[in-house]
Parts: sequence; C-alpha cells; structure tokens
Amino acid sequence: MLEELKEKVFQANLDLVKQGLVIYTWGNVSGIDREKGLVVIKPSGVSYEKMTAADMVVVDLESGKTVDGDLNPSSDTPTHLALYRAFPNIGGVVHTHSTYATSFAQAGRDIPNIGTTHADYFHREIPCTREMTKAEIEGEYELETGNVIVDEFLNIRQIEPDHTPGVLVRNHGPFSWGPTPDKAVYNAKVMEQCAQMAFIALSINPELTMSPHLIEKHYSRKHGPNAYYGQKK
Amino acid sequence: MLEELKEKVFQANLDLVKQGLVIYTWGNVSGIDREKGLVVIKPSGVSYEKMTAADMVVVDLESGKTVDGDLNPSSDTPTHLALYRAFPNIGGVVHTHSTYATSFAQAGRDIPNIGTTHADYFHREIPCTREMTKAEIEGEYELETGNVIVDEFLNIRQIEPDHTPGVLVRNHGPFSWGPTPDKAVYNAKVMEQCAQMAFIALSINPELTMSPHLIEKHYSRKHGPNAYYGQKK
Amino acid sequence: MLEELKEKVFQANLDLVKQGLVIYTWGNVSGIDREKGLVVIKPSGVSYEKMTAADMVVVDLESGKTVDGDLNPSSDTPTHLALYRAFPNIGGVVHTHSTYATSFAQAGRDIPNIGTTHADYFHREIPCTREMTKAEIEGEYELETGNVIVDEFLNIRQIEPDHTPGVLVRNHGPFSWGPTPDKAVYNAKVMEQCAQMAFIALSINPELTMSPHLIEKHYSRKHGPNAYYGQKK
Amino acid sequence: MLEELKEKVFQANLDLVKQGLVIYTWGNVSGIDREKGLVVIKPSGVSYEKMTAADMVVVDLESGKTVDGDLNPSSDTPTHLALYRAFPNIGGVVHTHSTYATSFAQAGRDIPNIGTTHADYFHREIPCTREMTKAEIEGEYELETGNVIVDEFLNIRQIEPDHTPGVLVRNHGPFSWGPTPDKAVYNAKVMEQCAQMAFIALSINPELTMSPHLIEKHYSRKHGPNAYYGQKK
Repeated sequence: MLEELKEKVFQANLDLVKQGLVIYTWGNVSGIDREKGLVVIKPSGVSYEKMTAADMVVVDLESGKTVDGDLNPSSDTPTHLALYRAFPNIGGVVHTHSTYATSFAQAGRDIPNIGTTHADYFHREIPCTREMTKAEIEGEYELETGNVIVDEFLNIRQIEPDHTPGVLVRNHGPFSWGPTPDKAVYNAKVMEQCAQMAFIALSINPELTMSPHLIEKHYSRKHGPNAYYGQKK
Repeated sequence: MLEELKEKVFQANLDLVKQGLVIYTWGNVSGIDREKGLVVIKPSGVSYEKMTAADMVVVDLESGKTVDGDLNPSSDTPTHLALYRAFPNIGGVVHTHSTYATSFAQAGRDIPNIGTTHADYFHREIPCTREMTKAEIEGEYELETGNVIVDEFLNIRQIEPDHTPGVLVRNHGPFSWGPTPDKAVYNAKVMEQCAQMAFIALSINPELTMSPHLIEKHYSRKHGPNAYYGQKK
Repeated sequence: MLEELKEKVFQANLDLVKQGLVIYTWGNVSGIDREKGLVVIKPSGVSYEKMTAADMVVVDLESGKTVDGDLNPSSDTPTHLALYRAFPNIGGVVHTHSTYATSFAQAGRDIPNIGTTHADYFHREIPCTREMTKAEIEGEYELETGNVIVDEFLNIRQIEPDHTPGVLVRNHGPFSWGPTPDKAVYNAKVMEQCAQMAFIALSINPELTMSPHLIEKHYSRKHGPNAYYGQKK
Repeated sequence: MLEELKEKVFQANLDLVKQGLVIYTWGNVSGIDREKGLVVIKPSGVSYEKMTAADMVVVDLESGKTVDGDLNPSSDTPTHLALYRAFPNIGGVVHTHSTYATSFAQAGRDIPNIGTTHADYFHREIPCTREMTKAEIEGEYELETGNVIVDEFLNIRQIEPDHTPGVLVRNHGPFSWGPTPDKAVYNAKVMEQCAQMAFIALSINPELTMSPHLIEKHYSRKHGPNAYYGQKK
C-alpha cells in the first residue's frame, strides 16, 4: 500500500545521506497521506545502504499502530505523528543529528535570524525548545518530545509552523518539516547551513542584529502572493 | 544570440558548484558584452543539474529588460547591472552564499587584509556595506543593493573596484567580479578562502595587523606593470 | 591462524580511513580471541593502501609476544593488551588521532555528556586521563598508557567501561573499544562526532548542562533490557 | 636532465592537491641534487591539471639561474634556495597556503607543541617568523623571506631544522622540508593537521601545556637511534 509515498519517503531518506546530514542510521524522514490518515516512515536502526522502498513502514496517524510493514518504525515515530496532528499543512517531517544544528540544540540556543539565507526560508528564529521535565522524559518520551515542539510554536512563542519549518529540541537535535518529504529534507539542509553560518558569525561578533525590514523583504521574495524568485509555475 | 558568452556564463555557473561555493540554486554568475550593452545571466531558481547553456537569459544593460531567453533572469539581476554600469572595466559578476564570506556579512565585519593570500588578489579589505534603509529595502531592493555597493566603493571608502574585486552585502552575502565570468568565480573562491582563514586567525588572535609594505609587495607581484608571478603572456 | 579474526581486524582498520578518522598510518584496530588468549592487531607503520589481511600480527594477551606474523605489531600494542586484560567484556580496541577528539585530549578536557547523540552511546563523560609521570613516560610507556586509562575508569572515576566505551589520553588522543572490532570503530566515529559538536556547542555557550533524566532515557533506549531502538534480533 | 628528480618533484606537487593542501596554483614543491648543485622546482602559475613532469624547471643552487626548462620557475624559488643553502641535510622543500597553518601565520602565532601528533614529527614549536622590514620587503623579497626563516632557526631560537621541519612565515604561510620532496609534503600535511588541532584545542582551553618528557618520548619513538615505530628497514 501507498507505494508511491513509500518511494518518495525512501528517496528522501537517501537524500539525507547525500546532503551530508546523517551518518550511520542517525536520521529519519516520514511523509503523510492526509486523506487516508496514514504516515510512511523509515524503519528503526536499518542502514541506508541496505534499506529499500519496501522496508518503509506505514503507521496510523491517530493510533500510531503499524498498518503495513514487517519492521519496527523509527523510534521517533510518535514525535512525527504529534507534529502531523498539530500542524495541519505539513506533508513531510525530518529528524537528523546534523552537526551544527545539533550543536546549537546542545548549547540550548536558538538559531538567530541574522541573514538573508535564513530569512529566505525561515521567517523567525529557529527556536530551541524548553527543557523537558522528569515526568515527560520518563513517560511517553517521544510523544512528549512532539508536544514540547508544538507547545513552543503554538503557545509559548506563537510561531507559524508553515513559515518557520524547523526546530531544535534542547540537548537533542533538529526536526524540520515541509509540504512534502523532499521539501522537509531541503529545510533540514538549509537549517544546517544557517546553523554553521550563525556559529561562525557569532564567533567573530557576539552581538548580531538584522533589520526587520530585510527579514520581511527576503521571506516575501520567496513566499506568499508577491513572491518573485524563480520561474512561474 | 551571444552563444559564446552564454556558454562561458553557463560554465562559470557550474564552476560555483565544483568549487563548493553554492548549494541548491544559491548563486549566480553573469557576463557582459560591452559593445552590445547586453548582459548574460543565470535564470532564477533553476537547478544546476538541469540547466543548459541555452537557458541563460540575455538582458539589456540599461533597461534590465529581457532581450533573449524563455526563463526569468536571476532575481539579483538589477544588482549585477548596477555593478556593470558603475565599474566600467568588469566583465563578469558573481553572487554566492558561500559559508565563511556570508558569515562575515552576517557579522557585519569586513574581511581584513591580514595575509599575503588576500593581498595577492585584493588590494584592500573586502568591505562590508552599511545597513540598508527601510526605503531602500521596500523600494527597488535589488537595484538599491547594487547602489549600496557602488556607494561603498566610489564614495564612502574610495576603493578601486578593479583592485579589490569583491564585497560583502551586510546580512546578505558576497558579490565578486573580474574581467571575465570565470575570473569573477576565481575571486569568489579566493574571497571564501580568505574569509575562512580570517575567521580562524581572528579566533586565535583578535588583534591582527599586516605591514602595509607587505600588502603592496604581494599585490604588485601579481598585478600591474611590474608583476612577475606566472608565465609571460 | 585466526584467519577470520585477521580479516575482521583488517576490514575494521580500512573502515578507519573510510570514516575519515585517520590519515597516513595514524591509527590501529585490534580484536581478541578470548578463548585462545590471543590478540590480532595492525602492523606498525604500514600504509593502509598496501596492507592485506595476512599482514595482521597475532600477539599473546599476557606476554605481548608475537605468535604469528612477519611484521612488528603496532607500537601501541601494550596499551591494547592492558585494556583487554582489565576490561573483560571488550572484543575490539581502536586508537586514532581523529581531529576533534585529539584536540580535546590536547586541551586536557573531557568530552562532556551534553547531548542525546553522546548519551545514546556513552553513559558518562568521555574522560581525559591525568598527566603521566616522568617515570611512566620513561618506563614502559605504552603499557603505562594503558594502566593510566584503566586507573581512570576503575579507580579514579569509577566509570563502567562497557557503558562508556572511550577515553582521551591527555596530550595524545582517543582510544575506544566495543564487543567487536567493528563496533569499536563505530564508537571511535561517534566519539569524534560528539567531540566536534561539543567544540561548537562550547564555543557558543561555555556553560552547558543536560538533564540527568534525559541521559538515562537515551542510554537505556539503546542499551540494556528495556532497549527499544532498532529491530528485534 | 635530472629526469628522475623531475618525476619525483612533479608527483610531490600533485600530492599537494590530493592531500587538500592547495587550491589553484597556490603551492610548490622542489627537490635537490646535492652532488650536481641543482634544484628542480615547479613552474610559476601553471595549473596542476595541465602540468607535466617535463615542465619542471632546473635552477642552479648558488646563482638561481635556470639551467633547464622553458618556463619561469616558481616565484618563490629564491626562498627554496636559501633553505637548501643553509640547511645542508634537506632534500625537498614545500610551500603552501594550507588553511589552518596559513591562519596561524596570519595570526602571528607559533603552532605550539601540545600533542603527541606534533611531537611525533616536530621536536619544537613550529615557529612564526618575525615581521620583515621595509628594506627586506622592497629588496630581494623572496630571498629575504628565506633569510628570515634561516635566522629564526639558526640564530634567534636555535632550532635544529632537521628535527623541526617546518615554519610559518608571518602574514604569509607555511614552508616545510624533509630528506626528500615527498617527505616534505608529508610534513606539510602533518603541519596542517597540527595547526587545525591546535586551533580547536586553543578555542576550548587557551592555556595549554604538555610534559617535556612526553615530547622527548614521542619524538624519539619515531626518530634517532632508539626509534621503534614502524618496520625494520
């Protein structure tokens, strides 16, 4: 079932390796079929070299139960599902331990919006979530990880997830999303690049700022009704 | 029309990828035919894998209007044109978001002239432009970006653009130029390398200096009437 | 003799190169046959390009004498043997001069446990050993290097070596281990990645912490009776 | 003439590219025939892709005049010759603008001897030379560059060049040497690696030290009458 989506999710997982975002099995991509309420995700702990499209696992959006597939789904599946349930427009979710974004997560710092590279794709800072409580960690940890992300966006900071498609889970690493699995991978790559450039910029000038007008300009060049970057669709 | 220049501009765009200066579609190269008053530039948002020489777009130097080509020219075209109009000797212009140069732009810092690698190709510091005003950003933004660069070179700092063929646009990224498109790419690579070395050097010694005599010596070894580097032409 | 183990040790040595952990001859992997009390190890100073499985050297666990092989064993052999004797569950040992881990060793700093990437594989900080004495250095240096590691784990800090399979020898570089030679290489790669991320994180936030509950959670997700990462064996 | 040495020097120049030590034409290797008093060196400004062994230039050790070859020798030739004249045991010289070593030169800092990786190949710190005077820069600059290196080793610091086969020319970059051209390249690679690790170590601990006993131990493990690393020759 969902063979086309399995193929897309499989290819997006391989792209993580090509883009230098994961080593070993440290990352996962999922995609959703909103009509059927089903999510396709990478199996847990399977190497990218041996994985095939047929190994992708189909789980139910609401219950999280495996509907199709012989392997265990990624252990991060409950986090992916929490994001799909709370952010109704997203079609793909990515988790990696990419070097610079993970380092910001470990430092407990947001990736600040200090350049047009960032503003082209992320409207706000990429937030680092609050510390999880003992109860959240010892309870349904992966589900609570998703809840902490959702809480950061929808309640604490009121960030629109479609316009800032990425987050840092504190002491853990980045999650990103997008309208499709491959666009979620694209955003994961941009986040990593922005994290590296923020690290370098912060090293040579700890006090960074950017004009809010420049942020608006760049984001709206690529997104929304007045976008004029690229070719007509 | 301008098939030969299209081929050169196309190859120079591919070189950006080979030199590790761009990911995805984040960069563009143009070249000019001064006699005809026409500029050839990369189309906007087209991937380097799919692009052909025939996709290059020809625009008019003065009006900016497309003269030949089916695709939209790079959204940064007005910046390129402003540079060609103000700097009469340049034949190629490059824009990238290369990692270290962009980080200096985000930090709002010049790339200082503290080594012979820099002095071999750039006579002065590579300047970071002033912050753009709200009016400039919300007006003809890409044209104003070019104007801010020109103002920095010709008025604020009085830097000779032929001898310091690169700039950092604040919070944005590097532009470089040269007598031909491929030499503009060469200068983009040197700028990125100098930015990386300046980052490392500043990290281990925040107070850097270089003898002005050494700067003169190295620049004149490679440029001008007494140059003696390389082979006789 | 021990042809199968020689092949595994040989392949694990080549993996060091593939994973970017060594240049030239700067690394070595060994494996042990506990029943026979014999250790297979890379020869000293032989390039990875020319090395074959048959070049692996077999030495006696207790005496350190060569039992099979025409070449000298790695000069670090006495360090490997000391680890095998003191840590009864380990089956493979790796030594590299990988860039970031070696830099932490040179800085005399532990790699702190500040992220889930670290906690997934190393239960505690990766300790940097104490400075060696003049007598230790001028005596049986490589044996004493092993003794200093063992002392750090079993006496000074009381770290369980099976749960924290790596160490930094001060001013020298990393050693890692695991149940097999290839898992020791895996841990060497994880250690290097954690060192790089700790360097970046420390640069942007010198005061790092991580919830002890999160450390327990992540380590036990992958290890021990309640592990649920990956597929059923 | 000197076909065999030309081939070795040519291969050593290509190795600079393979080892990631140079971009474009930014590096050069030479080798000497001590009996004939002739030095073979890379031509100036010729790309590594187009260069052949036959392009290598032969110059006289004393006069510096070209004895064989159609192309101009490297503009750094007088520096190479000064080193061959002052350091009687060296057989090859390398100059690069490798990233980390050049950054230390730009920062005006020695590469400190703080790890066994360094001590395995360089007995002392890798010194950064003093600032050159206006007269030295405006006079026979490349010859004076060599003289400043020689002065640093033989007079100012009294460093034995055979045991510390590398130097940083202030605001410029690294030179290294060795008994043969390929060993000089090897030392250039080690110097770059040591510079990178010193940068990282200094960033996380500005106060670095290393036991002098450990320095002696590691250097003598690989060099001198009691060396025991590697295989019997």
